[in-house]
Amino acid sequence: MISPFASNAKIQGFAGFLLFAGFVLAVTATAADPATPGWTPPTVSEVGKGVWRIRFGQPERFTPNAVRESQPNWDGIARLPAPGTLPFQPEDIRCRVTPARTVVYVPCDEPDDQIYGFGLDPAAYEQKGLRKYLSVCAGVMDKTGASHGPVPFWLSTRGYGIYVDTARVPWVHVARLAAKTAAATATAAEELKTQAADLYIARPVAGKTAVQVEIPGDSQGVDVYVFAGPTPREVVQRYNLFSGGGCLPPLWGLGMKYRAFTGANQANITNLARALRDRQIPCDMLGLEPGWQSRSYSCSLTWAKDRFPQPESMVNELNRQGFKVNLWEHAYINPDSPLYAPLQPLSGDFLVWGGLVVDFADPRAFRLFADYHGQTLIDHGIAGFKADECDNQPLTDCTPFNFPYSSVFPSGIDGEQMIQLYGYYYQRSILSAFRARNHRTWGDVRATAALAAPLPFNLYSDAYQFDQYLRQLVNASFAGLLWSPEVRDAGNLDELLNRFALSSFAAQMCLNIWFMPHPVWEQYDHDKNLAHELLAEPEQQRIAARLREIVTLRYRLLPYLYASFHRYQAEGLPPVRSLLLDFPTDAELRKVDHEFLFGDNLLVAPYLGSEHRRQVYLPKGCNWIDFTTGTLHPGGKTLTVEGQTGDAPLFVRENTLLPWAEPVSHIASETVFDLTIKVYGDHPEPFTLVEDDGETYDYERGAQNRLTLTWANGQGAVVKNGSYPGSRYRLSRWEKVALHP
Amino acid sequence: MISPFASNAKIQGFAGFLLFAGFVLAVTATAADPATPGWTPPTVSEVGKGVWRIRFGQPERFTPNAVRESQPNWDGIARLPAPGTLPFQPEDIRCRVTPARTVVYVPCDEPDDQIYGFGLDPAAYEQKGLRKYLSVCAGVMDKTGASHGPVPFWLSTRGYGIYVDTARVPWVHVARLAAKTAAATATAAEELKTQAADLYIARPVAGKTAVQVEIPGDSQGVDVYVFAGPTPREVVQRYNLFSGGGCLPPLWGLGMKYRAFTGANQANITNLARALRDRQIPCDMLGLEPGWQSRSYSCSLTWAKDRFPQPESMVNELNRQGFKVNLWEHAYINPDSPLYAPLQPLSGDFLVWGGLVVDFADPRAFRLFADYHGQTLIDHGIAGFKADECDNQPLTDCTPFNFPYSSVFPSGIDGEQMIQLYGYYYQRSILSAFRARNHRTWGDVRATAALAAPLPFNLYSDAYQFDQYLRQLVNASFAGLLWSPEVRDAGNLDELLNRFALSSFAAQMCLNIWFMPHPVWEQYDHDKNLAHELLAEPEQQRIAARLREIVTLRYRLLPYLYASFHRYQAEGLPPVRSLLLDFPTDAELRKVDHEFLFGDNLLVAPYLGSEHRRQVYLPKGCNWIDFTTGTLHPGGKTLTVEGQTGDAPLFVRENTLLPWAEPVSHIASETVFDLTIKVYGDHPEPFTLVEDDGETYDYERGAQNRLTLTWANGQGAVVKNGSYPGSRYRLSRWEKVALHP
Repeated sequence: MISPFASNAKIQGFAGFLLFAGFVLAVTATAADPATPGWTPPTVSEVGKGVWRIRFGQPERFTPNAVRESQPNWDGIARLPAPGTLPFQPEDIRCRVTPARTVVYVPCDEPDDQIYGFGLDPAAYEQKGLRKYLSVCAGVMDKTGASHGPVPFWLSTRGYGIYVDTARVPWVHVARLAAKTAAATATAAEELKTQAADLYIARPVAGKTAVQVEIPGDSQGVDVYVFAGPTPREVVQRYNLFSGGGCLPPLWGLGMKYRAFTGANQANITNLARALRDRQIPCDMLGLEPGWQSRSYSCSLTWAKDRFPQPESMVNELNRQGFKVNLWEHAYINPDSPLYAPLQPLSGDFLVWGGLVVDFADPRAFRLFADYHGQTLIDHGIAGFKADECDNQPLTDCTPFNFPYSSVFPSGIDGEQMIQLYGYYYQRSILSAFRARNHRTWGDVRATAALAAPLPFNLYSDAYQFDQYLRQLVNASFAGLLWSPEVRDAGNLDELLNRFALSSFAAQMCLNIWFMPHPVWEQYDHDKNLAHELLAEPEQQRIAARLREIVTLRYRLLPYLYASFHRYQAEGLPPVRSLLLDFPTDAELRKVDHEFLFGDNLLVAPYLGSEHRRQVYLPKGCNWIDFTTGTLHPGGKTLTVEGQTGDAPLFVRENTLLPWAEPVSHIASETVFDLTIKVYGDHPEPFTLVEDDGETYDYERGAQNRLTLTWANGQGAVVKNGSYPGSRYRLSRWEKVALHP
Repeated sequence: MISPFASNAKIQGFAGFLLFAGFVLAVTATAADPATPGWTPPTVSEVGKGVWRIRFGQPERFTPNAVRESQPNWDGIARLPAPGTLPFQPEDIRCRVTPARTVVYVPCDEPDDQIYGFGLDPAAYEQKGLRKYLSVCAGVMDKTGASHGPVPFWLSTRGYGIYVDTARVPWVHVARLAAKTAAATATAAEELKTQAADLYIARPVAGKTAVQVEIPGDSQGVDVYVFAGPTPREVVQRYNLFSGGGCLPPLWGLGMKYRAFTGANQANITNLARALRDRQIPCDMLGLEPGWQSRSYSCSLTWAKDRFPQPESMVNELNRQGFKVNLWEHAYINPDSPLYAPLQPLSGDFLVWGGLVVDFADPRAFRLFADYHGQTLIDHGIAGFKADECDNQPLTDCTPFNFPYSSVFPSGIDGEQMIQLYGYYYQRSILSAFRARNHRTWGDVRATAALAAPLPFNLYSDAYQFDQYLRQLVNASFAGLLWSPEVRDAGNLDELLNRFALSSFAAQMCLNIWFMPHPVWEQYDHDKNLAHELLAEPEQQRIAARLREIVTLRYRLLPYLYASFHRYQAEGLPPVRSLLLDFPTDAELRKVDHEFLFGDNLLVAPYLGSEHRRQVYLPKGCNWIDFTTGTLHPGGKTLTVEGQTGDAPLFVRENTLLPWAEPVSHIASETVFDLTIKVYGDHPEPFTLVEDDGETYDYERGAQNRLTLTWANGQGAVVKNGSYPGSRYRLSRWEKVALHP
């Protein structure tokens, strides 16, 4: 027989072959199908109003929830708006616990919703269709979400959020996989591709899909939490309150932080402090970089006596001048450190830069580290720390510094979990030393984890592109994180000024001038600054003046920002946040990752790069007032704004009462802000200022006052409630702002 | 008491704090220390001469060794030189099997050795100090070793090799981690860094270290194999023979392969075949790209009738003209394919491009796939396949096409293991169909695994930089892999010619012109070729002539290369390999990843990029003869060579007998090569040619002849042994090559 060869005949040939093969297989349901056996049974509990826990198997010993800083604020959760309806039942979340990994499947079948979150993602805003790799990571790895704050928490525009409680590095497939059960129909022929790039573009997923979380290794089980809305805003609030509520910084923490040259000595620091005051640039915090220590890679955590012969008198003098001092460090302990011997048995089996890796999961190590900071540094006037290098180098970096996943620690925590939690534990240890002294602190940290809202530390990163800096600020607000888009240097003066401006509207304003020996206004070019090639004095004056203007605007808004932080603490509402949270029905906002809300009523649209012109989308649902011109714009439209670099276009929500302070050079215990209340619109909403000592935790025990401002019939009024005996604000006047179309 | 604050006083303060802390901790041994409990006990067996297996716990069900193609060639191993002394005992290899991962520690304390291997690494040659991530990977991820052929096998210049038998994605820390037990001494103060890049440079590791392999998930245990030398060459031979020995291609597979335009139709293919013969460019294989199928993403595995109305007659006609036909495909099965229904229940739970993921680990699926290829394609004249898309997209790609690690398959293989083994199984399934017909095949594959030496498939990749292409060729020889540095396009004509030349000295020579409708000599610029903007005829002639010269040189060397492949098959010695393997004591070669041996006696030093000048290092231990000029050079020195692009500088080892064939346009069953034996030097080593039918496995049953050539007293002699009745070579003459200094 001569075999036929055309397509039809081949099928005949293959039919014969099937007979030859001699078996017939029934089409069976497969794994992604809930009808298949092998699913781990869920135990669902409603643990709070609109918060469900779904437990699969036995969760691991070390997870963010197991090692959390604070207990959930259930009362706060109960005070939120009533939960909305979920688009699925908690029981619809499925999980498969296998020896190699635990996999969670959360239904995500809505064609028109969008997913946000996964922490401090520098590169992606809308998350559907992406594969995430939620590793703590010092670099940007495309849109994988590997970042300084990877968080397996996401929210849907449909008004729910999911948190998967793991300290391992999960892969997350965000509505991008097609299950076999979903589609098995013939496909249309496609045009042949003649460019490699065309072959591998992402294609839409047909049929049922999910957000699918793969947790590798040691799979005993996992807890999944569901947070109800009704809108994404309440989802975020529930998550943050479940985390324990947002942190409350000391009032001085909202001022400006200037981080000095790594090689600065005592005289240089003293001179810098004087220069800031001479230039009349408001500043509250001075940061000392590696050079303050006798050994910095790894860390001795002791002063370098050659550079700082009298550290205590320097710190005292800086404090007297109104500067809080923040010290850079990391938690790899040098043999020269007094902490080395006691921590030697309470550390991992590998060294980093020759230093011990602290086993923070062991309460003895945690306390040794905290108490050392307390007794040798905090008790001597240090107000905060910058916890560096607790991040993890990207897996594309083949000569990383970090300890391996296989590290062994006396506490029994796994190396992978320790890498993911190192920054989180580190913050908690430092914080505990301040809490023990009833001091609030305000710090910087290079990495964090889920449930981090109660920790008063600001993330910073090496994702330094302007768009990444801005996107991280917006994404942070979905995940209980605070982001400090620190200014280091810039390609040109315009970009420098725009970076100043962006930083001034973040939770923390920080100039991190660690690699320049001279103040940034004397020379912003790194190499020239290092070479002592300074700008001419008129240029220095011009830059200092612009910086002063930018910082002053922030200081005028500090009472307003501080009120927002009190809301963060009590209600879980982020002080700086995505517009999506306040305008959930405006679909135009789904892609807007370059504007944000600063407090409840100010929309900030920073100039990008070295531009001084941009488009601004104003959300639907209210009118907006251009802060500079007083022009009233309806929401739902896009404007073009233009100004000078270093300005940040600002729009005030109509019907806002905006507290506006006389500027101060810094915030002392006794500072009283002199306020004008600016009235925008004819029917302003009430606004609540909060006053307390600004420095301690006494507010938790009632030592705070709530000052509710109202305006009616051309008249302002204040109602004060609370038992804080002091007074932080002097309301000088009310100013009805003239609006024009 | 006023607290002292200076450095000394702080230590006092801390001493007080330690008393306060109220506990004293003994310094204990930690995990990386073999004295610590927690190690998994090894079971050591010498499984072959110079091959040890160290078993820890219970290995997983799916590993390369468990699913291997061929049994070890123990006889071949026994015939190798006696094993050298290992620098450690097999028992010194330690392992910790934990629920989250299995970790293997292989001592690597020699300060002066170097480590090579880890598969088809495109970016790293010397491996010490690196962190590897041995994922099958379609892109280059720095020096992590993620590649199209990641292999957890490495070798040391000390003369041993290690294979860790896992199908998971291991992290490997290659002598880069410092154990706590190794170093705890005070450090010298370092200069403060003022550039971020300076902070994170890799620093040398002090004290004891290891090659540390972390295998994630499902950790029951693992087998580790140790291969003795005495030199790296015998290590590689032992590993390849343990794999089953190298593959033996059909003789025609060593000719040139030209892959045609994806959109070509029957007439275009016929014209291309004619054009190759008209231009007198030797060619044995034509490859058809996606357009031959009715559906290609995912694959129908049936002919596109519109483009190919009479495929059988076309294939018959091509075969008659001396062209073997190779078909592109991948193993994601389109609903339109006859294979869809039978494979539906024997596939993974997720689709790729809407196609089924074949559960090759289920013998039924494996056989269905093989038999379909056999009955509908191989039995109709198809001689080979290109198995594409079985690789895995880099984890930095956030919209990948591949199935997830959490995929579930009926056979019980894990998704991660399946991703790592998909290409390996795929080759085996195809190969089994050819073996069942007693046909050798020669194919292309996008991904492979460990123990792959017996598989007659050539890797190709998207790492297309010239240096990466060359480095992969050299690295492949450490890992039982074959590498085809296929030519696709080039920035300019010089680079194109150099790429031709490099390809001509690889295990497979392939021009993959899949995205150009016209032959590459008519227009090598992709966009212009697509736009039908062809070169002027004189320029076309010039390019075709150069291509003809380059290909002809390869065809002249085919008998020589075929002999090398027989050595690969019987002795495990790679036909194209790193110079390190033949000159293990020449430390200058440790960094030389841009020259290689082609067969036993030819050193190839290709021109890089679009250069026509380069430096060539000639290994110590013998003299070398410039192939073009006949100039004799002593080994151990670096020359500068210069020529024209498209040449590849060639050096012949002194005292070589080099078979040199009259060129042919292609290799038919009846082809007899007309040979000149070129004699280089006065005391040449014997050389053994092998002849057989070139097409079947009959050689395994003795149907091969070994023709041993010797030269003495100005006279050549041939001794023939074996029972193959045919004759493949006609020895016309011996030519003593004139050498001059």
